[in-house]
Amino acid sequence: MRRILVIGIGTGHPDHLTLEAIRAIGDADVIFVPTKGEDKAELADVRRSMIARHGAAGARLVDFAVPRRQTDGVGYRQGVDLWHAEIADIHEGLFLDHLAEGEVGAFLVWGDPMLYDSTIRILERVRDGGRVAFEVSVLPGITSMQLLAARHRIPINGIGQPVTITPGRRLSEIFPQTAQAVVVMLDGEEAFLAVEDPETEIFWGAYLGLPQEITIAGRLGAVREAIVAARAAARARHGWIMDIYLLRTPASSSAA
Amino acid sequence: MRRILVIGIGTGHPDHLTLEAIRAIGDADVIFVPTKGEDKAELADVRRSMIARHGAAGARLVDFAVPRRQTDGVGYRQGVDLWHAEIADIHEGLFLDHLAEGEVGAFLVWGDPMLYDSTIRILERVRDGGRVAFEVSVLPGITSMQLLAARHRIPINGIGQPVTITPGRRLSEIFPQTAQAVVVMLDGEEAFLAVEDPETEIFWGAYLGLPQEITIAGRLGAVREAIVAARAAARARHGWIMDIYLLRTPASSSAA
Repeated sequence: MRRILVIGIGTGHPDHLTLEAIRAIGDADVIFVPTKGEDKAELADVRRSMIARHGAAGARLVDFAVPRRQTDGVGYRQGVDLWHAEIADIHEGLFLDHLAEGEVGAFLVWGDPMLYDSTIRILERVRDGGRVAFEVSVLPGITSMQLLAARHRIPINGIGQPVTITPGRRLSEIFPQTAQAVVVMLDGEEAFLAVEDPETEIFWGAYLGLPQEITIAGRLGAVREAIVAARAAARARHGWIMDIYLLRTPASSSAA
Repeated sequence: MRRILVIGIGTGHPDHLTLEAIRAIGDADVIFVPTKGEDKAELADVRRSMIARHGAAGARLVDFAVPRRQTDGVGYRQGVDLWHAEIADIHEGLFLDHLAEGEVGAFLVWGDPMLYDSTIRILERVRDGGRVAFEVSVLPGITSMQLLAARHRIPINGIGQPVTITPGRRLSEIFPQTAQAVVVMLDGEEAFLAVEDPETEIFWGAYLGLPQEITIAGRLGAVREAIVAARAAARARHGWIMDIYLLRTPASSSAA
């Protein structure tokens, strides 16, 4: 039986690896490395250095190109579905061509495989295809949400209160109507600009875990423009940006 | 200046410590250890062995008794407020009596300090008291939510969908009305029993990270009684239980 390890490697800070993740990287006979589409240069460097430091001497690195997700003429869900099917085909080929029976393959996942990552879903598809059998183990890793809270030295929930995690595109449907504390991830479009109440608190961070890390916190009315400016400057300088933030309604802040 | 490290140590599995957390445990001159009220025997053993393994040779362990939270005659919020004030007084005394200027003190927090933990809030209160000055650093740790997802090999969110984390006592207000995927923590009262739709999916886990770990998953209609029975048997056997679960509405499951 082949074994596939889905290893959460945190947000880029090498010391955020767990002992378990380090051991798992060392256990892999083959590490599958996406080379296109999803990766920023600094992140690819971080991953390479983790593999160099913790990987077994004889481990094979197998690069694969990640296709682009189709967005023209298909809805979001359908686009994702087609995209996952395409990646699953690629993974199936990787396992058949590069991973022998009894060997261990690994995927290194940014953050934690549980949160806004498709590796587990894609492996389910490969398994459902029935042409290659394997066992899957999932290893947790530190997420950017945790690092955001650590850097701002805050809990993400109010006392005894719920907290919601959402992609930016869903923010306006839930905040502040049904969720009063929200962690926003994958927000390409500055969804916080549409939040009306200037007393809303925001705790923002970009490139968390990397040397170029930036954080800003305050009432939206006071720091909104500073965040927009910081995002634009950082994106111009580094060529990409990845950010995350927590929003709290004024009532929720006072209860925090 | 005194320094206080708030170190997330994960859920009890020693290999879930990050390199950063291990180093931080070793950096502490003093480790403050709660001895009453909050701790289960197995967890106290795990913590002791982490300190023995990673603590500096000369580090001092300072035990302190955690008072009970008053619940009679006060509301939930007020009870928590009074309780935090009392613990803040104890912490202030600990810092003044046991931590010299320039020294590093540490609290080891189960899971991650960001999630349903009061250490950061209590330190804010001590600081606001103005009688002892210190810097705080927060270090993330693996949460039981992450381990729950890893053990069940699932993402906690549907594709492009929000997910809400809630204490058990708030579940009935939000699920399934405003949140279709919910991670329930701190649920002393089996809040899932009040969920009506038997097609709801549940992914349940107890003692995650410890040797006595248990997991059950399925449709509520099929596994509800098995979970109740497993909880009762485990609690009778171990004297305590700590569990967590993810609920998904049928619509949300099919979109997952």
